[in-house]
Amino acid sequence: MAISRATSTRVPVAVLGATGYTGVELLRLLAGHPAIELAFLSSEQYRERSVAEIYPFLRGAVEATLQAPEPAAIAAAADIVLSALPHGAAAPLVADVVRRGRRVIDLSADFRLHDARVYARWYGEHPAPDLLAEAVYGLPEIHRARIPGARLVAAPGCYPTGALLGLLPLARAGFIREAVVVDAKSGTTGAGRGAKVEQLFAEVNENVRPYALAGHRHRPEIEQELHAAGTMAPVVFVPHLLPVSRGILSTIYVRVNGKRPPLAELFTEAYAREPFIVLRGEGTPPELREVRGTNRCAIGWYWDAPAEQAVVMTAIDNLGKGAAGQAVQCLNLLLGLPETTGLEAPALAV
Amino acid sequence: MAISRATSTRVPVAVLGATGYTGVELLRLLAGHPAIELAFLSSEQYRERSVAEIYPFLRGAVEATLQAPEPAAIAAAADIVLSALPHGAAAPLVADVVRRGRRVIDLSADFRLHDARVYARWYGEHPAPDLLAEAVYGLPEIHRARIPGARLVAAPGCYPTGALLGLLPLARAGFIREAVVVDAKSGTTGAGRGAKVEQLFAEVNENVRPYALAGHRHRPEIEQELHAAGTMAPVVFVPHLLPVSRGILSTIYVRVNGKRPPLAELFTEAYAREPFIVLRGEGTPPELREVRGTNRCAIGWYWDAPAEQAVVMTAIDNLGKGAAGQAVQCLNLLLGLPETTGLEAPALAV
Amino acid sequence: MAISRATSTRVPVAVLGATGYTGVELLRLLAGHPAIELAFLSSEQYRERSVAEIYPFLRGAVEATLQAPEPAAIAAAADIVLSALPHGAAAPLVADVVRRGRRVIDLSADFRLHDARVYARWYGEHPAPDLLAEAVYGLPEIHRARIPGARLVAAPGCYPTGALLGLLPLARAGFIREAVVVDAKSGTTGAGRGAKVEQLFAEVNENVRPYALAGHRHRPEIEQELHAAGTMAPVVFVPHLLPVSRGILSTIYVRVNGKRPPLAELFTEAYAREPFIVLRGEGTPPELREVRGTNRCAIGWYWDAPAEQAVVMTAIDNLGKGAAGQAVQCLNLLLGLPETTGLEAPALAV
Amino acid sequence: MAISRATSTRVPVAVLGATGYTGVELLRLLAGHPAIELAFLSSEQYRERSVAEIYPFLRGAVEATLQAPEPAAIAAAADIVLSALPHGAAAPLVADVVRRGRRVIDLSADFRLHDARVYARWYGEHPAPDLLAEAVYGLPEIHRARIPGARLVAAPGCYPTGALLGLLPLARAGFIREAVVVDAKSGTTGAGRGAKVEQLFAEVNENVRPYALAGHRHRPEIEQELHAAGTMAPVVFVPHLLPVSRGILSTIYVRVNGKRPPLAELFTEAYAREPFIVLRGEGTPPELREVRGTNRCAIGWYWDAPAEQAVVMTAIDNLGKGAAGQAVQCLNLLLGLPETTGLEAPALAV
Repeated sequence: MAISRATSTRVPVAVLGATGYTGVELLRLLAGHPAIELAFLSSEQYRERSVAEIYPFLRGAVEATLQAPEPAAIAAAADIVLSALPHGAAAPLVADVVRRGRRVIDLSADFRLHDARVYARWYGEHPAPDLLAEAVYGLPEIHRARIPGARLVAAPGCYPTGALLGLLPLARAGFIREAVVVDAKSGTTGAGRGAKVEQLFAEVNENVRPYALAGHRHRPEIEQELHAAGTMAPVVFVPHLLPVSRGILSTIYVRVNGKRPPLAELFTEAYAREPFIVLRGEGTPPELREVRGTNRCAIGWYWDAPAEQAVVMTAIDNLGKGAAGQAVQCLNLLLGLPETTGLEAPALAV
Repeated sequence: MAISRATSTRVPVAVLGATGYTGVELLRLLAGHPAIELAFLSSEQYRERSVAEIYPFLRGAVEATLQAPEPAAIAAAADIVLSALPHGAAAPLVADVVRRGRRVIDLSADFRLHDARVYARWYGEHPAPDLLAEAVYGLPEIHRARIPGARLVAAPGCYPTGALLGLLPLARAGFIREAVVVDAKSGTTGAGRGAKVEQLFAEVNENVRPYALAGHRHRPEIEQELHAAGTMAPVVFVPHLLPVSRGILSTIYVRVNGKRPPLAELFTEAYAREPFIVLRGEGTPPELREVRGTNRCAIGWYWDAPAEQAVVMTAIDNLGKGAAGQAVQCLNLLLGLPETTGLEAPALAV
Repeated sequence: MAISRATSTRVPVAVLGATGYTGVELLRLLAGHPAIELAFLSSEQYRERSVAEIYPFLRGAVEATLQAPEPAAIAAAADIVLSALPHGAAAPLVADVVRRGRRVIDLSADFRLHDARVYARWYGEHPAPDLLAEAVYGLPEIHRARIPGARLVAAPGCYPTGALLGLLPLARAGFIREAVVVDAKSGTTGAGRGAKVEQLFAEVNENVRPYALAGHRHRPEIEQELHAAGTMAPVVFVPHLLPVSRGILSTIYVRVNGKRPPLAELFTEAYAREPFIVLRGEGTPPELREVRGTNRCAIGWYWDAPAEQAVVMTAIDNLGKGAAGQAVQCLNLLLGLPETTGLEAPALAV
Repeated sequence: MAISRATSTRVPVAVLGATGYTGVELLRLLAGHPAIELAFLSSEQYRERSVAEIYPFLRGAVEATLQAPEPAAIAAAADIVLSALPHGAAAPLVADVVRRGRRVIDLSADFRLHDARVYARWYGEHPAPDLLAEAVYGLPEIHRARIPGARLVAAPGCYPTGALLGLLPLARAGFIREAVVVDAKSGTTGAGRGAKVEQLFAEVNENVRPYALAGHRHRPEIEQELHAAGTMAPVVFVPHLLPVSRGILSTIYVRVNGKRPPLAELFTEAYAREPFIVLRGEGTPPELREVRGTNRCAIGWYWDAPAEQAVVMTAIDNLGKGAAGQAVQCLNLLLGLPETTGLEAPALAV
């Protein structure tokens, strides 16, 4: 490691799983963060190699050698740990590091579902059910108050982030009484950097396909937070794979019987002070490019009068507000910093 | 024109608006059609130039000079006229040619809505309301029996084709009693070949955006045919622009209160003998690439039990079953040929 | 197998490696071929499964079950064998089938280099050096006369096809006396359908990269045929990976000292009677889309007077004229059919 | 204008033509620049509208109203003017503003060619030939010393930047004695945001085409700077349009008779202290994505021994080092700031 703890008053941070798409996005964002230092970076695949060798675009920005993810070494090097390990692999390591007294923001699915039985249905038995109950769901727009004091923050999934930010203002105001439809379209990086035939360029290019019809693991996560917001309505969730690298566009259909909900008012009230929510307003759809590379969520909506449906559209970058950006926002909350620290750069819109 | 009527016993056919995306797809398909000859091709923009000069890929396949669309010349040269002119421009010319005794398949929106008042709300006053009432809506899967005897066939819009083929089996069986949601994702050729900033590569690439939220002209067309199938339920229709050249993926959500509809049975009964409908079955989503360049519509579905919703997914090529392919299918019906004539080539799936 | 030899007077053909990108393109082309039947299709990966299950777009066009590539079974089922197996895997199987008296068109690199020592330098020791010497290099524009009588045709590589068709008219006329530059840009299907990280959508999209700088295996193949055409000039060959699925655009730079070569004359003389060569002429560049899905090679050129360089540009579909299309052209020659049989469909240009 | 001169000690800067691709990239970069304020933004097309309305992604980052480009108003508001107006439109306005005592960085082609006769051959008579001679060619890697004192900096073209950075170390060392080949592949934003059919998504997607074979305006610009570096060798320059939004990959072929040039040494000597040049080294090709959104130029090379050619590959972002990034680098030089100010963010590599 080129960087030692002695050389800086910055908070030493570890990034585990630093070479997957989410991990490297954390590096990109944290390279410019003024209050932290990258003190420990792990990669099983590329251990002992330098980050700049694997990702030349980080040369000059991140000078570090990748290491094996040893809990003792992690805890010795870092005060806060961001884990971008895959689900299943994350839980035992995260639990170990938390028990060593380090605070963790986990970007996997391992600590998002608070109910161990629901977890078991989708992922199998959980190795640390106590932490499952304790972990704070790291969507600041819902749980902001609880994040600064958390030992363990479970950063939300990309699909749930896009869906929940569109649904919550309606749910809290009691407008969701029937099943809602979330038609979500995602870029490919959401599926990770593993070598799979169905993710090859020629399989994705000039193509679109729905997938995971039998049920996507993100559905119970959406429903958990909706239930907490007071509605037990089920969610019809259909994800689609798009020929784009980054971004999730969620088109959300909410049947509202009776009178038209005051959509502009609901969204403005909910989000007027949110630094990363951009309200595009009635009749103006958001688009993926306006959030690319950022932690923003852009939201538009309209009221379909004949069908008595509110249509809400949200756009996020699945690696930004859907993963790494959101984790940095939570990190800022843990550190008592302004939430936008290190997250100010405008989108690479073209 | 290189081709004279005397040289062939094939049926002479005219293609108007032959150099737009739909027109040139007609040429591609008709170049290999064994029973017709391309006897008249019009283009205002490229008049007096050869097709092969404008579209080198047609060299050797279509040898003809583009002409101005003069009704008398069209009627003199062709027995059947396929018009790929834009809406508004098509109606007067089509009406003139029909009155000269030529049969016309019009690919614009000008004769799709039978009710002149509905038409007027979306497009303005209609110049030939009598023909509006007479025109047959050219979706063979609904109106097959009426097409062979028609003087004027209005080929359906691309979005309505994808939506209706997914909805009709449910509508006819009485399962559509509430508003349905059609979330449609389309390639860019659906918007035509006009030079518009929002269609530039750098505006579409790595982007997705909903559009036409205030109401898309294809919505009344979908509702007209649904109403004919016995349901007055409104349609929530949200089109999205994708970074692909060809294809429409429609994800359709139908709330069915009470017991689960027999989806496999409904679709099999409706489409078992349809030559261009490919049923992918329960839980298997269709994808755009499997229909690229073809006249096929691939359909998958599943039942979302907690939400009591049928989810139906259809994939078409917007230039194929959504426009030119469907017009050729109608042409075959007019000519008494097997519907698949000239439409047998498998998709260019990669 | 749904198709038995008894049901048809068509020539029974086997396709080995039928589920890779090249194999499935062979199926797409051969599905519409009027003189052959697909009598044996092999796939190790998908044995015992139906083609239509793996590739739904072939439903209705290819009804067959995939089998293991057993030489005895292949020879029993087919008169002619097209092998799309990867290099290394192809040679022993091809040699076995040839010795059983079946004619083979091999699409791998295993029989393209006639000199076993050159072969060994790039691929290791050859298992059947006698066949290496006997095999005919299957570029009809050079070796048309020798193909009909061949027992073994080695279909050329995709890069060599694009380069050689641009270079040969100059080489034969003695204009290539110095090193030539071939700057080639290829779509991703040229690399096959194996699951590799560097071929993932997000690694290729919005990116371009040169590769194989240390030397690409296609270089000796280009030089072999150039030498046969009378020039010993070396070839600087730099391949680039493009974010497209299909196509190779080769830009070729030939320094010609002294007077300007009569480019139009050279190309016209060489290719006027070639059914698949499209001359775009002086100053008109070819483009990938005009050959997509076809067996065509489009060629343009210009003379750069200040630099005394001929610049030749060729466009092919790497799966068409660069692989499967060319193999079908050779198959037609083996069968004594017009070379264009089954290869007439125009490009899917949009 | 939301921002008044009184509220800041930052240097007031004007951006003319602020809503084209280059203009908006200037806004994106300058929004985070610590030493300047955006004091005047012009757009003919969108005058009187706010930037955030046209480009929602800049909401919160750039709060300003677009104005007509009046020279007096520009000079009153700004100390330094960055013009992203198209060539032809830029010259008179730039000349006027310079004469009012404001320093200008012009990103058009209007002041790049010092010789009015060469200019006239490509663009017509120049309206301010005195300034043409005075303007400094704004490639800091060549003319760094002259930029800080310049009244008028002509920011280089995107293609010349990629070509010159690859060629100069060889040119200065006397290794370029013959014609060199520059095979350049560019994203679409280099052609601007005008509505043209050939730039539509469906014309560019899944396609590649060479263009401007008769001679591209960037060629004399490359030759001008090469001549200044001591070589009169002509340049064969072939640009290609790629289906990517951003980036130029230049593959450069230099015939070197005699002994192999010490490539690693030449590039290291030339660029070791350059903050934006990333040397990838012998045999390692650069790729577009590693420079996307940055001011970097990544360079790789190898020596092709049989052909006695040096092959140099450079990758830039055409909107970054090829336009807006380079202009900000020049701006930093004008202001006496570290050149990397505001240009530190790593690439959006995925």
